[in-house]
Order: sequence, then C-alpha cells, then structure tokens
Amino acid sequence: MLREWDLHTSSVRLADGCYATTLHDAWSIGPGTHGGYQVAVVASTIKEMLPHHPDPMVLSSYFLSPAQPGPAEVQVRVLRAGRGSTTVSAELSQHGATRLSVLATFSSLVDQPGVIERQMPAPAMPAPETCVPAVRAEPQLVDRFHLLFDPSSLGWATGSPSGEGRIQAWLRLKEDRDPDPIVALLACDALPPATLDIGHVGWAPTIELTAHVRAIPAPGWLKVAHRTRNVAGGLFEEDCGVWDSEGRLVAQSRQLVKVPLVGVGAN
Amino acid sequence: MLREWDLHTSSVRLADGCYATTLHDAWSIGPGTHGGYQVAVVASTIKEMLPHHPDPMVLSSYFLSPAQPGPAEVQVRVLRAGRGSTTVSAELSQHGATRLSVLATFSSLVDQPGVIERQMPAPAMPAPETCVPAVRAEPQLVDRFHLLFDPSSLGWATGSPSGEGRIQAWLRLKEDRDPDPIVALLACDALPPATLDIGHVGWAPTIELTAHVRAIPAPGWLKVAHRTRNVAGGLFEEDCGVWDSEGRLVAQSRQLVKVPLVGVGAN
Repeated sequence: MLREWDLHTSSVRLADGCYATTLHDAWSIGPGTHGGYQVAVVASTIKEMLPHHPDPMVLSSYFLSPAQPGPAEVQVRVLRAGRGSTTVSAELSQHGATRLSVLATFSSLVDQPGVIERQMPAPAMPAPETCVPAVRAEPQLVDRFHLLFDPSSLGWATGSPSGEGRIQAWLRLKEDRDPDPIVALLACDALPPATLDIGHVGWAPTIELTAHVRAIPAPGWLKVAHRTRNVAGGLFEEDCGVWDSEGRLVAQSRQLVKVPLVGVGAN
Repeated sequence: MLREWDLHTSSVRLADGCYATTLHDAWSIGPGTHGGYQVAVVASTIKEMLPHHPDPMVLSSYFLSPAQPGPAEVQVRVLRAGRGSTTVSAELSQHGATRLSVLATFSSLVDQPGVIERQMPAPAMPAPETCVPAVRAEPQLVDRFHLLFDPSSLGWATGSPSGEGRIQAWLRLKEDRDPDPIVALLACDALPPATLDIGHVGWAPTIELTAHVRAIPAPGWLKVAHRTRNVAGGLFEEDCGVWDSEGRLVAQSRQLVKVPLVGVGAN
C-alpha cells in the first residue's frame, strides 16, 4: 500500500516521457503549492522513468508560474543516457502553463564510492527535543513534516531577528518514514526564507533552485541550515546544507530568490 | 569593428531561436573547448535574442559531451517572457550532439535597484602587480585573459598545496576591454580546479555549473575566489565568488565536478 509521501509524489505514465500527476492540496501554502514539494514530484517522476539511475545527483529548477493544487503533467526528455548517469530535462505544467522547468542529472547513489575526503561539518544545534516546532499559517504543512527550529535562529518569530541571516531546523516527514534522496531535495526548500532573520517579512518567491544530493541519508532526523550572505538589487541567495543523523552532508543547495516587497522591519 | 571577445562569442541567426556559431580554437584546452567560454557563447546568443533582457541573472549549464573547436549550433527556446525577466532553455550542439544544455533567466541589470543590503566581502589579495601569472599548458588561453594568482593559494604549482581547497586570482581579458556580465560568467569557470589545492591533480570535468550574476561589473580587474568544502563520493562542489574593482560581488557560482581519477598526490 502506498503511504502518504508516495501517494503525494506519484505519477501515472501516459506515454513515453509523459506522466499525469496531482499536486495534492495537503501541500498548499498561501495561494499556491509548496515549491520543494513540486520539485519532489518532478524528481519522483524522473526516478520512475530511470530505474538504473533512480537518484537525483544534481537538479536545477526554474520556477515559472505559481502552481495550484490539482491535476498536473510532467514531461521528461532524456538528454544524455550514460553508463554512470542520465541527464534529463523536465517540465511540470498545469492547464498548458509551465510551473517548473528542470534540468537534472540522475545516478545511483548506492553505487557511488563511499569515501568522504572532506565535508562541511553540520552546525551545532540543540537536540530535537529542545527545539521549537514551526508555527505556520498553513496547518496542513504541519501535518506533512516535523520542523523543529534551533531557538538561536528563531528570533524573527518574536520580532527580534538575529541579523545573521541564518535559520536552522530539524526536519522529518510526519509519517513514519526515513528520509531518502528525494526527501533531501524537499528539505532544501522546506524552511522559511533566511531573510526573516535579517528582518524581511513576507513571502520570498524563488526564481531558481539548484540542489546537489551527495549521499543517501541515514535513517532519522535531517539537520537543515539556511543562510544568506548576499542581499542586493532586490535579490538574495539562499544557501542550504542538509545533514543526516550520522552527520553526513547529504544535500547542498542554493536558490536565487526575490526579496519580499513588503520591506524591512522587525515585525 | 568587432573585437576578439565579440568575434569569439558571436553567432548568426538562421531561424527563430536557431543560431550558427563557431567555437574558436583560441579557446581550446586539452582535447576540448574551455567550459566557461562555451557558457559565454550560449549566453551571448541568448542576449542577442533578448534585447530587453540582455543580462544573465541566473544560468545553469549541464555539460553533456566534450566540445571541439569548429562550427556549432545554439538553439534557444523562450519558456516564459515576463515584464522584468525572460526564462529560456538553450542547447549548444555540434554534429547533432548536445554539448551544453542550459536553463537561464535573463533580465536588465541596469534596471535593477542599486541597494546593497549585505554582501560577502571580497577576500584579501595582494595587488595584481605582485600576483603570479598563470603557467598553463595551453598557450592560447594565456593570450585570451590575464590570470594572476594570489601566491598564498598557489602552493599546488610547486608541489605544496595548502590543503585549504582555495584558489584566488585576478582576471581580465587580454584585449583592452572591461568586464561585463557575460565576462563575469566566464570568470566563474576560468580558474583551475580548487582540488589542486588539496593535492588532486588532473582535469576535473564539470557536470553542472549554476551562476548568479548580481551586478554589472565596474571597469578593471575582477577578483575571483574558488573554494571546495565537500569532496566525497568521487565528486566535489566548487563555489566561486567574483568581485569587481569596486569590491562589489558581481557573480556567485557553484559547480558539481568529478574528482580527477588520477588520485591524490602532491604532484
């Protein structure tokens, strides 16, 4: 029996490279659909199509128009089928309008050499039990995944952003299911924008997100850290690291995002 | 009269979205063609097609097969034409084989708000006069651009890599011409791989490169800093910052690259 995450990210093959799916309203956020969830739906469809290279190694998403809950179509085109990896382009569309345009290279992460020569250490964070649950306007997302914030990066929630541009949290799907490479992709876009921590409020629309998935996550919680260091010209970059329960960096991403128009303020 | 950089990156329109170009042998490197130059050729073609949005804001390149000097074709397809930006897909191909597959959003950087709220400071580096010219196997690239290395990140050239995974250099086109946003893209892929500084020798093939161009560079030298922090599973990420002569961060990029197969060693 398919469980929630599988159900919400599954698609049905209509023809070669053409799949029907549904953006579930359980992933609504504001007037649209959660961006990381859209990426996960596309990645799950590509995985379905590439049994020998089921894991996203690198995936770039360009967000073209806001998605809504309901039927959607995923078109996947193989650009290069190699021995060790396959590169594809993909589009998620609704009613003929493209929501996401994607380029991605998939491989088999279990076949990847295990050596770790160097990696960014996971940031220090209190244990999940002493972190703070997300307070969200969208109760349905609270039912999708646990998001437990490091209190030191949660000043923005009480009107006192730290000014560092840093937000950290533990993440885990709400259903009893361990993370996989596609859940790691979701994690790259699951936290509120790091600009909250420098006093920008409001929704920050992503223009582009590129994520590298570096390893299959170990079972348990994911540690997710967002940071912005360049806020200029109405845009900011958001860098994200995702570490598994064994401290391995499993994903790394960067987005280019529009600064919310409502401006700067402590509240 | 077109000068060198213009000539080397120009293309001729054959039909809607279809352009003929030539990968100039002045940009050969080893058996192929310089990756950053290929990106610049594609970006110049897109610019040609989008007079109202001439500047790359974000561009993702997936490198599918090695390019050779000679005739090439660029196909550009508009995915979304907005008021403030246009998103396109593009392919660079030769003899029917795709070399580069690209997604990009272009805009007009002169129309961008000028406010800099925060940015990564440019790294400290000795003045160009006291930096060290590139010693390259490809003399033709030495004629294309100046590359003057910070001596503190050049230990790898004498068999003593610092172990930090950091390479920094000043960059400027050899012809008397100031940098522009497309030259900033070239700069993101113009230095040797940062893994040299941790003792990996050999050619490191890029799988994917995504660059954000954040501002039009001021005239003069560009300061370019490469760094890798995650070398694992046969892959590394290379982060790059590019600053102009006024200290403004003009581009930021990240690549996913294969670790050279020749292994680890000081030489």
